Amino acid sequence: MPEFLKLLAPDDARSLLLTNLAAPLAAFELINTAAALGRVAAEDVRAPHPLPEFFRSSMDGYAVRARDTFGASDTLPAYLALAGEVPMGGAPGFALRPGECALIHTGGMLPEGADAVVMLEYTQGMEQGGAHGIPEGGNAPAGEVEILRAVADGENVIGVGEDVAAGQLVLPKGSLLRPAEIGGLMALGIRELRVARMVRVALISTGDEVVPVECRPDPGQVRDVNTHTLAALIEKSGGEPVRYGIVKDSFEALRAAAHSALEACDALIVTAGSSASTRDMTAAVINTLGAPGVLVHGINTRPGKPTILGVCGGKAVIGLPGNPVSALVNGYLFVVPAIEKLLGSLPRPRPSVLARLTVNLPSQAGREDWWPVRLIVRPQPSPRFPESWGRPGSGWDAEPIFAKSNLIFSLAAADGLLKISAHATGLEAGHVVEVWLI
Amino acid sequence: MPEFLKLLAPDDARSLLLTNLAAPLAAFELINTAAALGRVAAEDVRAPHPLPEFFRSSMDGYAVRARDTFGASDTLPAYLALAGEVPMGGAPGFALRPGECALIHTGGMLPEGADAVVMLEYTQGMEQGGAHGIPEGGNAPAGEVEILRAVADGENVIGVGEDVAAGQLVLPKGSLLRPAEIGGLMALGIRELRVARMVRVALISTGDEVVPVECRPDPGQVRDVNTHTLAALIEKSGGEPVRYGIVKDSFEALRAAAHSALEACDALIVTAGSSASTRDMTAAVINTLGAPGVLVHGINTRPGKPTILGVCGGKAVIGLPGNPVSALVNGYLFVVPAIEKLLGSLPRPRPSVLARLTVNLPSQAGREDWWPVRLIVRPQPSPRFPESWGRPGSGWDAEPIFAKSNLIFSLAAADGLLKISAHATGLEAGHVVEVWLI
Repeated sequence: MPEFLKLLAPDDARSLLLTNLAAPLAAFELINTAAALGRVAAEDVRAPHPLPEFFRSSMDGYAVRARDTFGASDTLPAYLALAGEVPMGGAPGFALRPGECALIHTGGMLPEGADAVVMLEYTQGMEQGGAHGIPEGGNAPAGEVEILRAVADGENVIGVGEDVAAGQLVLPKGSLLRPAEIGGLMALGIRELRVARMVRVALISTGDEVVPVECRPDPGQVRDVNTHTLAALIEKSGGEPVRYGIVKDSFEALRAAAHSALEACDALIVTAGSSASTRDMTAAVINTLGAPGVLVHGINTRPGKPTILGVCGGKAVIGLPGNPVSALVNGYLFVVPAIEKLLGSLPRPRPSVLARLTVNLPSQAGREDWWPVRLIVRPQPSPRFPESWGRPGSGWDAEPIFAKSNLIFSLAAADGLLKISAHATGLEAGHVVEVWLI
Repeated sequence: MPEFLKLLAPDDARSLLLTNLAAPLAAFELINTAAALGRVAAEDVRAPHPLPEFFRSSMDGYAVRARDTFGASDTLPAYLALAGEVPMGGAPGFALRPGECALIHTGGMLPEGADAVVMLEYTQGMEQGGAHGIPEGGNAPAGEVEILRAVADGENVIGVGEDVAAGQLVLPKGSLLRPAEIGGLMALGIRELRVARMVRVALISTGDEVVPVECRPDPGQVRDVNTHTLAALIEKSGGEPVRYGIVKDSFEALRAAAHSALEACDALIVTAGSSASTRDMTAAVINTLGAPGVLVHGINTRPGKPTILGVCGGKAVIGLPGNPVSALVNGYLFVVPAIEKLLGSLPRPRPSVLARLTVNLPSQAGREDWWPVRLIVRPQPSPRFPESWGRPGSGWDAEPIFAKSNLIFSLAAADGLLKISAHATGLEAGHVVEVWLI
């Protein structure tokens, strides 16, 4: 089998693919920030104005001129005249003169002349009543307030631009838009932004035995699973799957389908049929689609040895094995990173869970293995034990799924994948392992 | 502050909320399996037919009657007459008689009479040519094949129903539909399924200082961030956010808005304004919406102490603090689990990453703290070190984000949240910690 003479390690194979992909797609679209969940920023976003835009109290208390409180203590309070109450949602409407203070709530705007806030619990005033000791209603309180602590200039105050300066980079290009990013943009009134266009990934299934899911398979036929698992994976990863259906095991038919698919899309995935000649055919077809063509043919991993990685005219072309488990596992290993590269995503950690392996898991040295595992909650002897948080594998058992054939349900039953390094000859029961969630 | 007399631990508060929520919503919808990514199965799905549906070869090789190979070895091969080649995607069209074999490809259907497959590498035949030593084209090969290994009955064969038996439970109610689940259903021809209706979560922001993001805030005003962070969080978690906008700090206005929101939705979130009286008002309003009303008022966590958890007429009602970081962190802690309960989701591990803390992180004993942290790739001295996989914290440094105010950008800059247990007085630099990805 000439294509397997040189098996690359999965990490090296992935690097080769990604470095041969040019810069991210230049294409972007302008969308509403409110609809941007899961998209990737296509430009640096800078703050159009500072945050906060006014001097804001970070506490409930009294706005003061700090110098008026110097030396104040429980035994020797400072007495300040109450000039008024700062309304929420408006400018104070008055300024503080020396010797004065103003009742202020968290988030309230400091009156002119004030430069600090004394927390409510370090004050006493006969006007303090109502909920939390703060006068309610719009009437300006009058009288004196005892200040029991000195405050420094700026204490309990957030200055203009202290959170975000005008022009500050708040969202680097390549950021994933999560709830926090969306909220941050909204705080600045940025209701639209440019995001990377979704990566269009063409899907072709091959194999004379493969029939569309709509069909009742005849004897010897099976339904096309790979189009649907990979379409969902692409969707989940910021891509837009474009289904080209099932192509018969013929070089010319596959070449024609692949050519037109790649013209319309940013990337192409071909899943092979089970018949022995298909893998070579896929590689030969990829080499007709553009330079450099096939980069990797044969990867030192199980499942996934026959995986083909190529780049044709700047577009990723990936040949995956026909068996559904192998196709999906290698989709996680190679298709997702390719989509992220094309989106221009900044690197992000891959979600995982630490768990304790329940059984010995043998492995062939010199080959990287990926096992589907189920995660099972382990009853905790003491869930409140101080150090249980952060202790490796404190909560989960990892149970490998052993299945005779490469049935897709072995992945459906799995919470994640467990890697056994090429250098290991297996993992021992009781070991704490990192399981990649799928 | 009467509401804080009894602070519950976050885990206890969450349990109280979830146990007071009745069974999951009964509502479901019938959707296309191809569009089911991220939805939750609302029914047990059983296999309508077995998989495979015919005896299938799991190897490239020769289909045989196992008894004809007994005793075969390199030095004493068995010689079998080649009866034909099994076409991919069809029934063989011939039966094996004693002393015969048939060329078969992975996934091919065994001819009648055959009960095992001998792998290609353990055979020799003068007809073997073409790619991988397998004849190509439709011509039936003729001649004899040397069999160099004995096989047992059923060897290299997947029997009917061996992957999935007819009637077998393949997708339990409550399963999340991921790529593998979608593929599994497609393998069985199940192109539609019942999924839990998305949980409709009403969002109300309060606070006289809060203005819609469309507005240019006047002095003393800030834009409404919480509606948008929480809407995105709800969307991400299988809910459908329903925005009720901003309600002024008035008991009657809030009561009326909350009442109509809860009538139309399955759950309600009220985020408080910053003004001191709002928190009590939210609790009082929740108690007018139905029994049992407020369950938890005050949680022993930072941020999030003022969080209110309630259930009114079987619907979850949650009051979150007005500050955007606190609202979003407590959204992860309480809103997401409530949505999952209402969807009927089976428990799943929360995605995390192990990392090494870069600095000492102090914490007040007796209170659970949640810190936003940034994850930074640590240069690996030896990325191929055999045991680096599964070694705790092998790849990431966790750098806590210190921000003076509760600016939402401190979460936007974070990859995840780090919990410091109520029993700890902090975490030391160099410790390996588990960071929950957000």
